[in-house]
Amino acid sequence: MTKFSFTRTAQDGRARTGVIETTRGAIRTPAFMPVGTAATVKAMLPGSVRETGADILLGNTYHLMLRPTAERIERLGGLHKFMNWERPILTDSGGFQVMSLAALRKLTEKGVTFKSHIDGSKHEITPERSMEIQRMLGSDIVMCFDECPALPADRARISESMQLSMRWAARSKEAFGDRPGHALFGIQQGGLEEDLRAESAAALREIGFDGYAVGGLAVGEGQEAMFGCLDFAAGQLPEDTPRYLMGVGKPDDIVGAVARGIDMMDCVLPSRSGRTGQVFTRRGVLNIKNARHADDPRPLDDRCDCPACRQYSRAYLHHVFRSQEIIASMLMTWHNLHYYQTLMAGMRDAVSEMRFAAFEAEFHAARAEGDIEPL
Amino acid sequence: MTKFSFTRTAQDGRARTGVIETTRGAIRTPAFMPVGTAATVKAMLPGSVRETGADILLGNTYHLMLRPTAERIERLGGLHKFMNWERPILTDSGGFQVMSLAALRKLTEKGVTFKSHIDGSKHEITPERSMEIQRMLGSDIVMCFDECPALPADRARISESMQLSMRWAARSKEAFGDRPGHALFGIQQGGLEEDLRAESAAALREIGFDGYAVGGLAVGEGQEAMFGCLDFAAGQLPEDTPRYLMGVGKPDDIVGAVARGIDMMDCVLPSRSGRTGQVFTRRGVLNIKNARHADDPRPLDDRCDCPACRQYSRAYLHHVFRSQEIIASMLMTWHNLHYYQTLMAGMRDAVSEMRFAAFEAEFHAARAEGDIEPL
Repeated sequence: MTKFSFTRTAQDGRARTGVIETTRGAIRTPAFMPVGTAATVKAMLPGSVRETGADILLGNTYHLMLRPTAERIERLGGLHKFMNWERPILTDSGGFQVMSLAALRKLTEKGVTFKSHIDGSKHEITPERSMEIQRMLGSDIVMCFDECPALPADRARISESMQLSMRWAARSKEAFGDRPGHALFGIQQGGLEEDLRAESAAALREIGFDGYAVGGLAVGEGQEAMFGCLDFAAGQLPEDTPRYLMGVGKPDDIVGAVARGIDMMDCVLPSRSGRTGQVFTRRGVLNIKNARHADDPRPLDDRCDCPACRQYSRAYLHHVFRSQEIIASMLMTWHNLHYYQTLMAGMRDAVSEMRFAAFEAEFHAARAEGDIEPL
Repeated sequence: MTKFSFTRTAQDGRARTGVIETTRGAIRTPAFMPVGTAATVKAMLPGSVRETGADILLGNTYHLMLRPTAERIERLGGLHKFMNWERPILTDSGGFQVMSLAALRKLTEKGVTFKSHIDGSKHEITPERSMEIQRMLGSDIVMCFDECPALPADRARISESMQLSMRWAARSKEAFGDRPGHALFGIQQGGLEEDLRAESAAALREIGFDGYAVGGLAVGEGQEAMFGCLDFAAGQLPEDTPRYLMGVGKPDDIVGAVARGIDMMDCVLPSRSGRTGQVFTRRGVLNIKNARHADDPRPLDDRCDCPACRQYSRAYLHHVFRSQEIIASMLMTWHNLHYYQTLMAGMRDAVSEMRFAAFEAEFHAARAEGDIEPL
């Protein structure tokens, strides 16, 4: 079985491009991972997700452990088979969603106990249990179990939480064991504090992981603060393994993160927005429910070759969105994911061709134009 | 422009098979028309609908005239272009849905006034207006505007209503005018009364249409009464033009209707059921939300080659249905439409090969077996 590997093929400034090889196929970086929370990227068939250019999906441990349960997925042959996605899957550790979704959370040194947001049943996640669940799911890239404090928080709380996450990272590594063909990523914490981030990075490097995530960002601190943190945090992580910025983000967040040395990202934004009528194009964001689109025969983006843009008018998408038709979610999610993957491909090419700064300038210039004028 | 034509290629008992040629392609009969109410077959992309084997879709005049309006669809190039379906479309007249959905209906000799179920706005449909709307939509097969009384109703009410529908049929024909490449179908009424059905059929034949529908059935009379009526009603309509049974139905309704000489049908059942978890297979009906499927690695139907059956387990479909994921509607609608189209193809082959009675027997025998046993 091939071992997990990362090869950087080019670097322009801090922006990198390369490829992660896994036993289930290659992941071109920088990579955007669509989120398949409950064993589906909402409103998309897996073949369509692949058509947008996605090399890897993210699955949510918290959701899957509650329903249909990791044990059931294992009995059914693992998450890839269950959800009909043969390529790589990264699973998060469950930690973040326990904190954001579950009720009656109780945090101890051992782990977290909580009640399910679905049926109120009681559960526990520890580093060991998180590794067990992610093993049963069969994910290719496993994330350490960590704690992620909401920002703003005081320095003492952030430091304490980071220390706990580092102890959990060591336990995660121990529990993960030796699983050829599967990778384990550590998660750096430390809020916006440079020294705490450095301390966390050092602790993780000491333990040793196949890749390193920047955790604890995109939790309300704002883009400027996030970029400020990434300016030091990314460089604290090893150069020769993938760097993954968790839960990010908007298109300009993603471009800024890649500019700061990030290789992987995930976010529900393109899929969630597809269901709420928010559409991403190279000229920024538009809302399809706006009356200005009702009679507009033009596509969302005349340069986009996704099915929504090749085959449908804004007027149609407006109509089906207003009529609450499922096809509206299907088409706009497809478009948004296609936009995100096209953006990633554009960045990969730009880094390869050593013109990332020009790419960034064009990206921002097109967005500054804003959406096409009404007819 | 090719004129609308119908060629019967075989007949076995009263069951017929053949082909309707239109300017937008051939319709193999017996044909099942998926319903694309608001310019979309719910939860399906048009390419997927075509993949199930559908040659023609049905669009609903009532829904489309209210939203996005026929005028808007015409400005945007017609319904085919609007909804990205290049093959034939049949539109109903709006009459049936006005009666079942609209508020404050007022019926006169001239037509029907009503308030929209969407926004309460006031509208009128007359035979002339129905023809105008269907022309603006650009439908290939246009239906006469008729009135359809709910059953049971007394004979006088049914007769009176049928007479009105026949006067409206004459006005529809007059208003339709001469539109090469587009067909106009008359609609037989008369409840379950043989003599009223005969009177209606005679009136329609006198006016002259490109095809004839059996209207006013599948409105609560039950299968036995419906088949009893079809036993005389279908034969009252011309042999050399298509016979269309409106709003039917369940798989066994469809087989029984074809056995009685029907060539075309439409129903929301396969698509609606796909969204409510009801699944049609050759072994009958199953409900995917039932706990018995939670751990079942088998497909819905091991002989079905739709994506839901080729790529997913019952366990997965159960999970995504219980999780209210859109993919559940997408996959189960696909399966159900595939099942219906496979059933139609089976009947077409059976009639061609003069073994329709054997086909019927096999159809009922497989259903009598019931769903596969739980593991």
